Formats: sequence, C-alpha cells, structure tokens
Amino acid sequence: MDAAVVARETFAASVFESLRADSVDGPGVTRTSYMAGEQRAHDAVAELASGLGLAVSVDAAGNLAARFAGRRPELPAWITGSHLDSVHVGGNFDGAAGVVAGLTAIAAMIDAGLRPQRDIVLMAFRAEESSTWFVGRHGGHLGSRAALGSLWEGELDSAIHVATGRPLRAMMTEAGFDPGRIETGPSILNPADYAGYIELHIEQGPILENRAIPVGIVTGIRGAYRVRNGRVLGAYSHSGAVPHEYRQDAVFAMADLVMALDGEWARRRAAGEDLVVTVGKFATEAERHSLTKVPGQVDFAIDIRSQGRDTLDGMETFLRDKARMIEAQRGVALTLEPFDRSSPSPMAPLLVAALQEGAEGLGIPYLTMASGGGHDAQDFADAGIPAAMIFVRNDKGSHNPNEAMEIADFMQATRVLANVLWAMAGEA
Amino acid sequence: MDAAVVARETFAASVFESLRADSVDGPGVTRTSYMAGEQRAHDAVAELASGLGLAVSVDAAGNLAARFAGRRPELPAWITGSHLDSVHVGGNFDGAAGVVAGLTAIAAMIDAGLRPQRDIVLMAFRAEESSTWFVGRHGGHLGSRAALGSLWEGELDSAIHVATGRPLRAMMTEAGFDPGRIETGPSILNPADYAGYIELHIEQGPILENRAIPVGIVTGIRGAYRVRNGRVLGAYSHSGAVPHEYRQDAVFAMADLVMALDGEWARRRAAGEDLVVTVGKFATEAERHSLTKVPGQVDFAIDIRSQGRDTLDGMETFLRDKARMIEAQRGVALTLEPFDRSSPSPMAPLLVAALQEGAEGLGIPYLTMASGGGHDAQDFADAGIPAAMIFVRNDKGSHNPNEAMEIADFMQATRVLANVLWAMAGEA
Repeated sequence: MDAAVVARETFAASVFESLRADSVDGPGVTRTSYMAGEQRAHDAVAELASGLGLAVSVDAAGNLAARFAGRRPELPAWITGSHLDSVHVGGNFDGAAGVVAGLTAIAAMIDAGLRPQRDIVLMAFRAEESSTWFVGRHGGHLGSRAALGSLWEGELDSAIHVATGRPLRAMMTEAGFDPGRIETGPSILNPADYAGYIELHIEQGPILENRAIPVGIVTGIRGAYRVRNGRVLGAYSHSGAVPHEYRQDAVFAMADLVMALDGEWARRRAAGEDLVVTVGKFATEAERHSLTKVPGQVDFAIDIRSQGRDTLDGMETFLRDKARMIEAQRGVALTLEPFDRSSPSPMAPLLVAALQEGAEGLGIPYLTMASGGGHDAQDFADAGIPAAMIFVRNDKGSHNPNEAMEIADFMQATRVLANVLWAMAGEA
Repeated sequence: MDAAVVARETFAASVFESLRADSVDGPGVTRTSYMAGEQRAHDAVAELASGLGLAVSVDAAGNLAARFAGRRPELPAWITGSHLDSVHVGGNFDGAAGVVAGLTAIAAMIDAGLRPQRDIVLMAFRAEESSTWFVGRHGGHLGSRAALGSLWEGELDSAIHVATGRPLRAMMTEAGFDPGRIETGPSILNPADYAGYIELHIEQGPILENRAIPVGIVTGIRGAYRVRNGRVLGAYSHSGAVPHEYRQDAVFAMADLVMALDGEWARRRAAGEDLVVTVGKFATEAERHSLTKVPGQVDFAIDIRSQGRDTLDGMETFLRDKARMIEAQRGVALTLEPFDRSSPSPMAPLLVAALQEGAEGLGIPYLTMASGGGHDAQDFADAGIPAAMIFVRNDKGSHNPNEAMEIADFMQATRVLANVLWAMAGEA
C-alpha cells in the first residue's frame, strides 16, 4: 500500500492547490469558521470523498465525516482528520494538511484494492481556530468539542463570533446545523464507537526544521496554565524627585517576576522537565506612561505550558509565591486572577509506539516530541478516545501566510499515517 | 523684617487664590504656556508688583521682571522667582509658589521700610513646563533659557506647541513678544549684571512630607541620562511550540536589562551615590502582542538621574555593556539611541550654606536634598549665575491637581528666602 500512497502525491498537491484557490486572501488564505471560506473547503473535501466512494455526512455541529466502510462495521472505528478553518490571512496547511492526508491515505488504500476490517472515518472539524474567530467565554476547538459532547454549559451562547458579533448557536443555525441537538444530545461521537484518533498536522514551531527531520511523533499536547489579564498596580510618581524607598514601581516589580520565571524555567529545563514560559504581554499604560514618571501600572499575560502536570503545578506555586514576595518587597499589588488551567493531554502510548514503529519500518526519520499548540486530538484524548498526532516539518511557523510545508515532507508523514491506520484498522 | 514676612501670610494666600480663580480647570488649574492661562497669571502678578511700586517690564520672550530698586543699581542684582505656567489640569503651586514667595518677600521688605543696597528682581518665567506644552526638538524651560541666551540654534522653530501645532517663534510673536531679539540678541540676562538667583519651589517628590520637615535646601539639580525611544527587537513565535533555544524573546531580554539596572542601582545606593533609575515605559505592541505569542518587540524609556556626573557616566557604561551582553545571550537587538545626556547642575555652595544658616537662624527645620526635577534655577547655574533653591513640603507630588502645599510651610520657606535675599542684597 505504501507505493499507492507515494503515487498519490500529485493528487494531494492538487487538493492543497484547490483549497488555496478557494480561499486566497492577499498573501495567505482566510477560511473563517462557520462562514463561507470554511464552507467552501468542506464542500470541496465532501466532493472528493464522495468521488472516492466514501459515505459522506455532516453532523449537527457542521463537522464533515467521510466513512470508508470496513468489513466489520460492528467494531469500533478509527478516525483520522483535522480542521479546515484557518486564521485570518493564515497559511494553507494548518488544519487542511490533516484532512488531505486522511483523504490521501484512504484513496491509496482504495487504489491498492484494500478494504479494512474496521471503518476508517475521515473527519474535517469546524472552528478549531476558535481563539481567532470567537471571543467571549469559550474553551476553544468548538467543532470537535461539540461533536465529543465537551462543550461547557452555556458555551453555545457565550462564544461570540468576531466577524458577526453573534453567538456560536446562531452561527451554527444560520449555516444550517443543529445546535439544539448538541445541547440535548447524547454526544455525536460516542467513545465506545471509536478505537482511536490519529491526526496529522504541520508543526507550529521550528524544531523539525532546525533539526532537519521531516516528521514528528507527538507524545502529548502540553497543558497551559495561564494568566490572561494580569496586572501590577503600583503608584505613579516623579521619575527624578522620588527616591527608591518611596517608589511603588510596577515595571521593576513585573521585571522581577519575569526574571524569576526565567530562572525557574532554566532550573527545570536543566532537570529535564518539558516546559515553555511566555510573557506575551508586558505593557505600561499607553495613555499615562512617560519617560519621567515612575510607572504605576503594568498589564501582562503569562502562558506556561508543559506535558507534565507536576511541572505546571510546580510553576503555579512558584509564580504565586514569588508574586507575594514581590508585592511585599516592592509595594505593589499583583493580580494573577483569573488563572486558567488546561491539563496536558498525553497521547496514547501504544499509538505513539505504533507510529514510531511505522516510521522506522518505512525508513522515515522522525523526532519524538511534544506539541506546544492545542489540537483537536487533545479533545479526543480528553474524551477517553486513544489519540495520537504526526507532525510535518514546517519552516515558518503557523498562523501566518508564510507556512512552508514541503509536499515531500507531507508525503512522508502521510505514509506513516496510512501505515499505522492500516495496521490498526486494516487487519484487526 | 521676619515679622513683616509673617504678617504677609494673608496676602500670599490671597494671591494664590486669585491665581487659582483665574485658571481653574476642573479639579485643577491650566495655565498654558504662551497662551491665555499663563498670560492672566502674568497680568495679575504685574499688577500686584506695580501696586508695590516695583518697576515692571516684560522681556522679548515674555518673561516678567519686577525690579525692587536698591541704593546701588550699579552693583550686580539678585533675582528671585519661578514660572507661572502649569501643566494641563495641574496644581496651583508648581511654579507660582516661587513667584508669590518673591513678591511676598519684597512686600515685607517694603512693609518694614527696608531698601536693599542691590536691586532685587522678581521674575516670572514663561514656559517652564515645556515638556508638557512643546513637542519637537527642544531643551525645555524655554522662557528662562530664552532670557539667558541658552536656546539652541533653530529651537525657536523646532519647539512645537501642542495646543496649536505652531513653533515657539510664532507663539511668541502672536503673544506680542520678539523672538527676533532673542535670536540676534546679546542675551537678555547678562551674567555680569546678576549676583545670583534664588528660587523657591514646591518639592515634586514625597521626601519632606515623609520626613515631616517643611523646608528643603537644594544642593543640586540632578542631571538626566535618558533613552527616550528604546526598542528591543526579537522575533514573534508560538508560545507553546517554540522551545527556549529558538526564542528571541523581547520581554525576557528587557526584563533582564531592567533587573540589571535594579541591581546596579542598589549597589550604588549602598555606596552612598545619589541616583534614581526609572523605566517609565515598557510596552509590547498593542496591535500584535498576545497571550500565545513569544513577544518580538518591546518599546521602552529609561531615565537615570543623579547629582553626580561620574554616577551618570558609570550608569551609561553599565547600561551599554549589559545591553550588548543581553543581545548576545538572548538573540535580540537592543536600541539605546538617541541617548540624551543632561548634566547635573550643582547649586552654588556659598548660597546653599547661606540658606542653611538662614533657616537655622530662624529656627526653621530643613532638609538638605537634591532636586530630582528640572527647574529654571538650573539654567541660571548652567549660565554661570550662582543659583540656589528652597523646596516647600508638598504632599501629593506635582503636575497633578492634588498638590497639597500648606500655606504655613510656604511661609516658613518664604521667611528663609527673604532672610537670605536680604543678607545678600540688603546690606552688601
């Protein structure tokens, strides 16, 4: 079958090109969740899947499912796929690569005259880029979470679309879907019906590129402990006339906290812990700050991610202790609330091992690595469905028009995907 | 004479009240440089000075001079005064206190039937709050510097008024003054004609308030070494997916620099050096920063002030060395240019001693201290005219409507001023 995957390279490239042509927006593409750009991509994939003879359906949240029927439909099925929305003027590969890979793998099985024991379902999810397209209170990945029954109570109404100002519920209704079914449902995807989920995705960081390795096999999706709207409150005063002992300097206080995090991060890296720490926002007040004022306020955001829950909990404790110490030492008030905690989502170890074996069997170089970004796969893992991910090397990061996935790398990753899907669903 | 000063308290309080009434703006006062608010204050002081029998004149820059003629007009005269403009919705005392004090001191001498040997000239300067009212390229304190012949070449045209968008030259012309005279002049105030300058001003910091001392005697005005428009350039990347070794994090880099300054400041404080360090601005980009992006840019401002030129030079060297080190360690580019240097202006030691003796003789508690803010006095010192300053305790800082100078403190400081003016000009 591997030869049949390789032979589908031109097909895969042409699908990417057609998706791009349908959603081109300046230097990149825009496939807005629950709007026309995303819908055109869903229509195109549905048509291609139908052309391959797959049974195409759309669920109550608008997610697309294309079922390659196996010989034993009573057995739990396998899912592969990803999302089809993009960020605003994003790249063509973030999301779409996983859908095209699934389609290519299934097409290759058909080309090779193979029919699996178990159903293999290609899925294309809606609204994975929810942090781009929705504001308000929501937990992200709205399409896959709707299908998995993981939406929060009220989330259909508290997630507000940035382009229309309307809630998710209205966006779904207007696109022809059925939010009421999601709300009252049993969940659309019942874990008992599925043996596992494998998602291919471009890497969003530079690790594979820097290490010259085409494929990544993901051990887990990092959890994130976050301060979204942190604030240091000190007191404004005269930069020349107020001596050190009377200052309540918000910038020195926050810089102290940042350097404390820097030090703790270094200690934990040295101890081999998986960890990234980002202070994405550190801002004095544009309306008030000045060369000649001791700054009285800093707004900040902190994003701490790790595959290890102990590491995340340890960092939270460190952050809180250090914040209290700085408050006492520097005469400021330091707000870390609301403090968001999303847990790490470990990938299923047996699936990780199967992917490693698959890549080794095919002679494809790979790196075992964490996923720093969130993906639909984590929602499957969180719902109790064994999940795994394959990354494709990508030079220029994601969420920008410069994504630079090479089709040759994509094909190597797709060969691993097809290999393991067949190993899991084909003969068992 | 001291009893005559004390007896003028009601007069002084009424002058403050009338100045306030003429310029009230919400909770504070606005006396815009070279516009109506400042002009009304000048008119009021001119009228009061004329009423005392002083010879009132207005110079080519619009500064007011009210001369109390001495017996020996051929001798170098003494100047006392300050400015009459305020910041936007500022307090009533910053600047005005020095003019009211001079007027009160001279009135008391007249009340006491005293006539000095030397002329005593009360001056009210224009546009001391130039950093509030003028943008563009300028060196501040435009009124006193115009009188002292210290304007830069082109400054009449490069200082742009914020309320009108017009250059200083046009503001002067429209107010009826003569910028051409300033440009071609000999300087309006010739150092050979003046024996010294003594300025009373509210303290702009909290030191006197915190130490419960009514009067400050200033040893020098701190110089300031400044980075007005600093920038750290790193690279934006994904907060979850990019590991430490591939980051070029502008916030960690800048926090590192801030904490280095914090440490160096502590070392120099411990060594007894006069120093304040302020990072008044530390701002990621409002349009691009995000919880989930490694920050690629920080804009900042640094203000380092000291009475010691060696301290300022040492801090500049430290800052530059540390910036180069951080660039190498953290993969960022750190811009410190343009780097402004204004030198410290030491007050005349003999005048400082005279003020200390005066306060001691009157039994008035005082603190010997630095001035962190800039004042017209520094332009006199820089022009080679012996200068000194008396501070008045002020609870709530300056440049805001909450300035809280007590009239009792003002009177104690004015007694010191009158005492020393008489000692210097009265009998010698």
